[in-house]
Amino acid sequence: MKIAILGTGAGARQHAARLSSLGHQVIIGTRDPKATSARTEPDMMGTEPFAVFHAAHPELTLVTFAEAADAGELVINGIDGANAVTALAGLPASVLAGKTLIDYAVPYVHQQPGGPEHSWPTPWGEMPHLDPVDTDSLAEQIQRALPETKVVKTFVTQEQETVVNPAEFGGGDHTMFLAGDHEDAKTDARELLSSYGWNDIIDAGPLAAARGLEMYAHFHTALGIALGTRFGVKIIR
Amino acid sequence: MKIAILGTGAGARQHAARLSSLGHQVIIGTRDPKATSARTEPDMMGTEPFAVFHAAHPELTLVTFAEAADAGELVINGIDGANAVTALAGLPASVLAGKTLIDYAVPYVHQQPGGPEHSWPTPWGEMPHLDPVDTDSLAEQIQRALPETKVVKTFVTQEQETVVNPAEFGGGDHTMFLAGDHEDAKTDARELLSSYGWNDIIDAGPLAAARGLEMYAHFHTALGIALGTRFGVKIIR
Repeated sequence: MKIAILGTGAGARQHAARLSSLGHQVIIGTRDPKATSARTEPDMMGTEPFAVFHAAHPELTLVTFAEAADAGELVINGIDGANAVTALAGLPASVLAGKTLIDYAVPYVHQQPGGPEHSWPTPWGEMPHLDPVDTDSLAEQIQRALPETKVVKTFVTQEQETVVNPAEFGGGDHTMFLAGDHEDAKTDARELLSSYGWNDIIDAGPLAAARGLEMYAHFHTALGIALGTRFGVKIIR
Repeated sequence: MKIAILGTGAGARQHAARLSSLGHQVIIGTRDPKATSARTEPDMMGTEPFAVFHAAHPELTLVTFAEAADAGELVINGIDGANAVTALAGLPASVLAGKTLIDYAVPYVHQQPGGPEHSWPTPWGEMPHLDPVDTDSLAEQIQRALPETKVVKTFVTQEQETVVNPAEFGGGDHTMFLAGDHEDAKTDARELLSSYGWNDIIDAGPLAAARGLEMYAHFHTALGIALGTRFGVKIIR
């Protein structure tokens, strides 16, 4: 299958490498392919330059967002939450029309240090907040911006290393969630998750349920700090 | 142990009955004990009049908020999120000073029907939102209002029926969470949870982690609707 991944960050790379190893043709989209390939320094999150990753995965194609979206039969949005709506809305409508778009971003806004919300240090040294939150979600914003596209929210409750390899905890016996307004797109997402090794996948409902999946980020972050390790969540019935 | 429960709603009753069965002396506080006892109709949530519950549990004492808080060695706040800070801040400071106060409220604000946020029906017929959310929590508001009291947030990730009886799913093999800035108060909460039957209790960190525990409400609500049943969450490491 031709799968497009929009974005070149650490999460996008996890999906690209995993999907490639599963035999898919993976096309990675970025704003400016030449600039992405030319970078030689780690980014502010400490992620190694894309060229280093690309050298280890020469089978991956790096093109523009529009070219990648146009080529993909299934599209994964790995553009960070702060820029996703603008970047996606700026694409020619035809490249995403009718397609399943999986979105996994947490719409974190990183504050300037010293503001009133910084009482609780996190691994990134500040307490981020979410925008949108509570009465809207990034996934719903993307869906409104791309009415002809079928948006599914998933992955977002987990680190990407775990998303592509659920067996790293408890033999993979934990739960992944998805939300969306299009049943066929949710089937696409479910098949992709199954291929990653997820056995327990819960449909959390319409895309409005993405509010809960995105807001789960604070819970997951707090627990990650408290436990000092990655972890899975299993729904017990 | 003398345990005060502030509030007479369905959650407060679950705790009162369970704690009484465990041998504690339970004192229930309400704004106006006479009015609470005189009510003969179910409330808007369909909860039976308190007098019906009280007749089945005559061992429980019903007094004012201040009298209950003063009598309790440990205090559980069951006042709804919209009224908790005002009600608690209005008590004489001495009745809660130095005590552990367990707060379990979700700070839901129920909207008037017809607003822009009602695209996703919930069991209560509308999509509530949270206030505070994201950069603050109800638990932190209560702690700021009661600086001499030791606030612990817990229970909030579960229905009250499950909180007092975790064995209703998976033999009780799922996880409860707590957050707070006072270690001795977290020990009190942990002991209470153990007496309810919780074996897996995770300290999620300082009281700021209550943001994540409260915001988990949307996730839990969405899953509850999707699954059509109550459920537990187990952390897999």
